[in-house]
Amino acid sequence: MKISRRGLLRDGGVFLVGATVGGLSLSLPSNSVQASAGKQDVIEVPWPYKKLNPEAVAENAYHGYYKGACCYGSFNSIIEELRKEIGAPYAMIPTSMMIFGEGGIAGISSTCGALNGAAAAIFLITGNIEKEKRKVAFSIIRELFHWYEQTPMPYYRPPKPKYEIIKSISHSTLCHASVSNWCKTAKLKAFSKERSERCGWLTGSVAKYTVELLNANAEGNFKAIHKLSKDVESCRSCHDEGSALENTRGMMDCGGCHFRAPSQHPKT
Amino acid sequence: MKISRRGLLRDGGVFLVGATVGGLSLSLPSNSVQASAGKQDVIEVPWPYKKLNPEAVAENAYHGYYKGACCYGSFNSIIEELRKEIGAPYAMIPTSMMIFGEGGIAGISSTCGALNGAAAAIFLITGNIEKEKRKVAFSIIRELFHWYEQTPMPYYRPPKPKYEIIKSISHSTLCHASVSNWCKTAKLKAFSKERSERCGWLTGSVAKYTVELLNANAEGNFKAIHKLSKDVESCRSCHDEGSALENTRGMMDCGGCHFRAPSQHPKT
Repeated sequence: MKISRRGLLRDGGVFLVGATVGGLSLSLPSNSVQASAGKQDVIEVPWPYKKLNPEAVAENAYHGYYKGACCYGSFNSIIEELRKEIGAPYAMIPTSMMIFGEGGIAGISSTCGALNGAAAAIFLITGNIEKEKRKVAFSIIRELFHWYEQTPMPYYRPPKPKYEIIKSISHSTLCHASVSNWCKTAKLKAFSKERSERCGWLTGSVAKYTVELLNANAEGNFKAIHKLSKDVESCRSCHDEGSALENTRGMMDCGGCHFRAPSQHPKT
Repeated sequence: MKISRRGLLRDGGVFLVGATVGGLSLSLPSNSVQASAGKQDVIEVPWPYKKLNPEAVAENAYHGYYKGACCYGSFNSIIEELRKEIGAPYAMIPTSMMIFGEGGIAGISSTCGALNGAAAAIFLITGNIEKEKRKVAFSIIRELFHWYEQTPMPYYRPPKPKYEIIKSISHSTLCHASVSNWCKTAKLKAFSKERSERCGWLTGSVAKYTVELLNANAEGNFKAIHKLSKDVESCRSCHDEGSALENTRGMMDCGGCHFRAPSQHPKT
């Protein structure tokens, strides 16, 4: 049996060959084999996608949280389902790398790890290295982040939870602020087992909504629903791109850390 | 020529074979080939490392910033050098996925993308899925984040810059806060070409320091130098793990967003 280098690359290398062929013998001419050492072998974004079951991915993410924390949980849940549905090139990617995002990156509590992992998966599936073509992926990621800030969470309840979890609105995409808001609502501590369970549900929630967005995009039906609030747009009108001050940038809920209403603005 | 499945996996699959062999014929027994379709083919963290030249990586990161922005720039610069030095498994990873972190993730301006990408690379190289063994990677990532918050930046100047860039201290690992502090110091706008160049230098800076940390770790000489400030530890003593309130978590510079001195604390 002979397999061309083009076919080998198109199908994601030896992994798909392994998936479909029993006894195998590969013969490649020397020049094409040598070429396979370089960067040209990387299968760049976007990777193929097949619609997934949001509930199944959410449940995988919930269990993944207890294995490799929030960022791994959301990322791995999507990749693992795509390994089953598509195979290569998803078989190649080390999802364990994404453990780095645990607790807002190594416990530093900056960006929520579930969001960070989901954003990576969204770009892998819908992104593009060409600047103009990044817009679709960025729109989906922004919708996910705005939804997270504005929605009572968790949005997913596992069938067999360790505890029941009360909902809260984070008003922030940052780990520590999201945790603090939940602690205040639930009257529970930041390092309690219940808070950990809450972040497991949250990881499932983010994975579930991400798959809903990816499915809608695959159908050609993706539309951003969650917008920045009027207050945030008011801030941006003086401080963001093209404004008089233009001294910052961002699409986070300013009021989550600063002040909520324009009437509370320091005197100018 | 016959190559065992174990050897194929150990060396990262067809890529290393391609790197070293001219004319090639692979023969694998059917059971081992079929097995290669599953998750067992993923080469999990930690991946092999060979000491790199921090200046070369920084320059690659600076140019990478203009190609795929900050998160891609820092991540790709390290991976691309390791592709040259080690080859597989680095040939397999789609660094373009990391474009997702651009401008604090899709322009949302949460965590600085250069840090986000570097943290992923650090975990890929020094991390572990086992909880106890994550500590080394997390210590290196925390050192990087604390250094970024406390150090006058940029720390790297490309040999042929588009503009000269004034230094500022970010007091934050968040994109928008880091940008705002620089805008204030440099008296330049957030969407100016100079600010963009500054983020290119910053991407180089983060990549450079990351490689210095990875090299030290490879020599067995890694030591965290940058600590949380006394003010932050004062905040954490009432609000973080094991404290009376325990209503948040984090290792960010609290004063970057909240108030700086304990004397400014709201009345309790």
